Amino acid sequence: SLVQTATGVRELAKRIGQATIKVDLRSVLIVTKARDNSLIVLTRQLAMWLIKTRGICVYVDAKLRLSKRFNAEGMLAEEPRAETNLRYWTPELTRTMPDLFDLVLTLGGDGTVLYTSWLFQRIVPPVLAFSLGSLGFLTNFAYTDHELHLNRVFDEGININLRMRFTCSVHKGGHQTETFEVINEIVIDRGPSPWISMLELYGNNHLLTKVQADGLILSTPTGSTAYSLSAGGSLVHPEIPAISVTPICPHTLSFRPMLLPDSMLLKVSVPGGARNTAWASFDGRHRVELRSGDYVTVTASQYPFPTVTAGPMDYIEAVSRTLKWNVREQQKPFK
Amino acid sequence: SLVQTATGVRELAKRIGQATIKVDLRSVLIVTKARDNSLIVLTRQLAMWLIKTRGICVYVDAKLRLSKRFNAEGMLAEEPRAETNLRYWTPELTRTMPDLFDLVLTLGGDGTVLYTSWLFQRIVPPVLAFSLGSLGFLTNFAYTDHELHLNRVFDEGININLRMRFTCSVHKGGHQTETFEVINEIVIDRGPSPWISMLELYGNNHLLTKVQADGLILSTPTGSTAYSLSAGGSLVHPEIPAISVTPICPHTLSFRPMLLPDSMLLKVSVPGGARNTAWASFDGRHRVELRSGDYVTVTASQYPFPTVTAGPMDYIEAVSRTLKWNVREQQKPFK
Amino acid sequence: SLVQTATGVRELAKRIGQATIKVDLRSVLIVTKARDNSLIVLTRQLAMWLIKTRGICVYVDAKLRLSKRFNAEGMLAEEPRAETNLRYWTPELTRTMPDLFDLVLTLGGDGTVLYTSWLFQRIVPPVLAFSLGSLGFLTNFAYTDHELHLNRVFDEGININLRMRFTCSVHKGGHQTETFEVINEIVIDRGPSPWISMLELYGNNHLLTKVQADGLILSTPTGSTAYSLSAGGSLVHPEIPAISVTPICPHTLSFRPMLLPDSMLLKVSVPGGARNTAWASFDGRHRVELRSGDYVTVTASQYPFPTVTAGPMDYIEAVSRTLKWNVREQQKPFK
Amino acid sequence: SLVQTATGVRELAKRIGQATIKVDLRSVLIVTKARDNSLIVLTRQLAMWLIKTRGICVYVDAKLRLSKRFNAEGMLAEEPRAETNLRYWTPELTRTMPDLFDLVLTLGGDGTVLYTSWLFQRIVPPVLAFSLGSLGFLTNFAYTDHELHLNRVFDEGININLRMRFTCSVHKGGHQTETFEVINEIVIDRGPSPWISMLELYGNNHLLTKVQADGLILSTPTGSTAYSLSAGGSLVHPEIPAISVTPICPHTLSFRPMLLPDSMLLKVSVPGGARNTAWASFDGRHRVELRSGDYVTVTASQYPFPTVTAGPMDYIEAVSRTLKWNVREQQKPFK
Repeated sequence: SLVQTATGVRELAKRIGQATIKVDLRSVLIVTKARDNSLIVLTRQLAMWLIKTRGICVYVDAKLRLSKRFNAEGMLAEEPRAETNLRYWTPELTRTMPDLFDLVLTLGGDGTVLYTSWLFQRIVPPVLAFSLGSLGFLTNFAYTDHELHLNRVFDEGININLRMRFTCSVHKGGHQTETFEVINEIVIDRGPSPWISMLELYGNNHLLTKVQADGLILSTPTGSTAYSLSAGGSLVHPEIPAISVTPICPHTLSFRPMLLPDSMLLKVSVPGGARNTAWASFDGRHRVELRSGDYVTVTASQYPFPTVTAGPMDYIEAVSRTLKWNVREQQKPFK
Repeated sequence: SLVQTATGVRELAKRIGQATIKVDLRSVLIVTKARDNSLIVLTRQLAMWLIKTRGICVYVDAKLRLSKRFNAEGMLAEEPRAETNLRYWTPELTRTMPDLFDLVLTLGGDGTVLYTSWLFQRIVPPVLAFSLGSLGFLTNFAYTDHELHLNRVFDEGININLRMRFTCSVHKGGHQTETFEVINEIVIDRGPSPWISMLELYGNNHLLTKVQADGLILSTPTGSTAYSLSAGGSLVHPEIPAISVTPICPHTLSFRPMLLPDSMLLKVSVPGGARNTAWASFDGRHRVELRSGDYVTVTASQYPFPTVTAGPMDYIEAVSRTLKWNVREQQKPFK
Repeated sequence: SLVQTATGVRELAKRIGQATIKVDLRSVLIVTKARDNSLIVLTRQLAMWLIKTRGICVYVDAKLRLSKRFNAEGMLAEEPRAETNLRYWTPELTRTMPDLFDLVLTLGGDGTVLYTSWLFQRIVPPVLAFSLGSLGFLTNFAYTDHELHLNRVFDEGININLRMRFTCSVHKGGHQTETFEVINEIVIDRGPSPWISMLELYGNNHLLTKVQADGLILSTPTGSTAYSLSAGGSLVHPEIPAISVTPICPHTLSFRPMLLPDSMLLKVSVPGGARNTAWASFDGRHRVELRSGDYVTVTASQYPFPTVTAGPMDYIEAVSRTLKWNVREQQKPFK
Repeated sequence: SLVQTATGVRELAKRIGQATIKVDLRSVLIVTKARDNSLIVLTRQLAMWLIKTRGICVYVDAKLRLSKRFNAEGMLAEEPRAETNLRYWTPELTRTMPDLFDLVLTLGGDGTVLYTSWLFQRIVPPVLAFSLGSLGFLTNFAYTDHELHLNRVFDEGININLRMRFTCSVHKGGHQTETFEVINEIVIDRGPSPWISMLELYGNNHLLTKVQADGLILSTPTGSTAYSLSAGGSLVHPEIPAISVTPICPHTLSFRPMLLPDSMLLKVSVPGGARNTAWASFDGRHRVELRSGDYVTVTASQYPFPTVTAGPMDYIEAVSRTLKWNVREQQKPFK
């Protein structure tokens, strides 16, 4: 009967990963690099199209409010509904009132999606990521077809993939000092110093191993195509609830990458008495120094990152396309 | 709310993996190599101890029924309860009536545990694996302390780990010919032929990739410490519901091992028109030739393999002990 | 002074690897797949061009002597010098009288070059390898420009690269039974049997290591882009006098590939008392069973394989082109 | 005949690598960590033994001249020959007058041998490395048997291995600023900055590849057991004249480590227009920042590092002992 329950739970998890959701879309947020001129023009066109054809609220970056190129006044003149429906977001708003937004549209590359994860440190609305050039790992919708894609979203609903994030808490000098949500990875490395202290890795408060290496990567499945892959980690499908532990240039030949269950509470510490410090970085953005006795805890977040999928084979297509995973070059035959 | 459901399901899965179960143990089955003389003596002692001190039924290998060394008659003379409580199992019985047994005890090495998986092709009772020498991956209880361990099992209950198995179905000439439950891996390789055909790997009926390699390993988490590891795969904790796809000597540099969710139906086929055949093997035991058009399907089994755990860090201790995972040799200091 | 001598020797080796040689070309041998119709036509055109424009002797495959498509009689009618200058080679002739040929031209792919190495088991004339489609590792001249390339060879000379070959001797039942020259690798693996015996690897008659693996690859620098690479070996520039030792799916995590000096005499043996046999194969062609007590010796051959180079960066261009070594896909930018 | 010359050169190289040299030992230099008290005592004992039993000159670190623990006056009192035969070395002396010393003895670990390489930036006397604890890669003589080993050296001569060093020249702002001899490796990495510029790797002034990675390691055979190994490089026997190119966490899956001939002039540059700097370090000691346009050249040094070998299988024994290369743990059998 335990087996039956377990099988049932597994079945449930499978269905959750594949459900099509009909969302009542009344408000959409657009994230992009606000300083890029061509992106300002695209943002304006997209916002106008959404307001005109769908009559919904559109939040754009507050930095555009006074942009001449964005020309908000011109929008109001052209479309009266923009008076109420064109709104502005700030990082403060996304952090505190994520429930305001039914959908996030990103224009740009994978970096823009990572930035969106930073904006929403708690609940994240579903994110549909448009690519402006080649499709990436996370940017799986071509902007050239954006009207087609968006009409489908409005009319048929969306399939989403709940991508795991980590909640990382930094403990320095005996106190918790900072907490970050990451969608790719946390890296603890030697930073500017030529030597790293030995690190200690704990799982559920048991010592798993002592790490002598350039550093240690704890990666989500989403991050398994990023730094972890460069350091020799395996590719991990985003539906798998696992944490990749990948050492960077380890001193032992036997330190093979390991996947741990996402139910495990991980802790990486700089042991007491260590002479050198270590540096933690979070999705490659923030850098925090860890001294002797300091540590970081890492757990699967309660706030996953829901991405809209383009099809059932999204992931395989992304790794084939972007990494050339097992792609053989076509040889030119003789004619 | 989808997120909340998903979080709830994850929490549920976590608890299932850690529950202590009080089992009403009335019947125990002992698996060992029946032809090894020293093991016959141990089996006899263990059976007697279980019947005498706990008064339960003990099933031993039917090959021992007439063994002089086992001396069943002597047991009856010494302990009258053996008349009813000493029973004999056959592969037929384990296959058809697995519910007869509340617990399986194995004496030997990891191979004996693999053999137990073969005996129980459907429902598997909890398995407690004793090692007679060094502890292995699966043999995590030292036989030297068997009375201590068994008394704890009777008095306090057991923690079990539901290890994933695969259900592998062979399709030849358009018909399903055989089905195997494996606990380590299925390997499709070139067998005796010097060349392999290209293989095709499908997930949920979509082509994932074409494989040009010496072979392909589809491994459970349990099997991630076996052949998959030799071929470059990562270590995967047994609680993770993932299938490792590991190529053997692939022709492309980019064919990095990949983990797929266990909800995916995998299929490996020899494409139509292929000149060479491939060979599938199941836990290293059975070998089946696959010709052009033949294929094997692989899914997470409904019948996992429940193993009794020795402690919360069982897995890490096993890989440290057995693989020397990231174990640094102590250097002799100067005195 | 020892250091000075060593430096001098190194300098000498360097110059040998880079010399331009003016060859007095009076006789050329053409190797191709004699059964491929389009190749027969090309062979005929090439032979005619060489006889007509350069007046030299051309040896073609004796299988073409009676080929209607090759039409030797028509050649004689068209060009009287063909009477004396069109000649035929057989494997017997290449084996026994390699000095007859000043240059070998191969038409085809890398396989045709490997076949040429088999034809010349002792001294090998310089080999210029034409590719009919994409350039390969060894086929570094495009046939579409063959007149240009050949005129340069006649007028300016050639640069050659002396590619190391191995002399492999098989010892069975106490006697040396066969000897092979290989240009890529010798592989000792489990062949058709599901299990391999442990192998023993000796260097200069000292035991280097015991091998528990699917097999062992001993590779020349030329072979480092072939099977050794699939098994995890490094790329080795063909000018380096080293033997790559690469295990196939080893049982220990620490069995990292190793390069040994080509001055070392290697021996791979199946130890006495082994239950299973092993199989040796030579450039993927010949397969020899090794039983308990049998062994193979491997040394750098006295008969290297001289290939004509297309330029100083030949090797790097070949690995970039063929393996996509560190080639980044160009991402399509947004327009 | 080219082949014959090449074979002769190879044979010559082989003999140089294996010659036993009878050295007329009149002066020995001892290198150790001068601040370690126990080492001071050992240095004193060793110097006295050499002066008393062999009557040769012994150079010790000039820092010991006034050390109470070393007690040079006591030595003079005990052994009058110490008056002339006990001498002191300074880094200045080793740099400018290396010919003064017939043999260097190091007491300590591999770090002390690396330090010796730094002391002798041009000609290096033969180095015999004593280990005070476990033997290391370079410290292949146990100090506990030092009298035995030294008597053999005096009476029978030594075998030496000429370990390749690199001459690395730093070019900044259009000028050569520094030159280092390294015995392990030169590393170019991102240093303290979170991002690295793309690097360019040139061989003989041809672009070999553009490097997007955490860094790049150019390693000697001696260094192949150090950082290069951690980054995934192969083990390279010290007699092989090759340069290992090993990327650190490369961005492409196809950037496999490559071995280049030591006759090649390598150059690593930070391309013009790069936004970030890179950092070069030499045997892990010195750190130099490279800005846009700066570069480092690397060539096989004219000044190799001659180490005294303990036996013909020195290298294999060292990697087995120190790296546990393909060493299988003995499993405890059942008794």
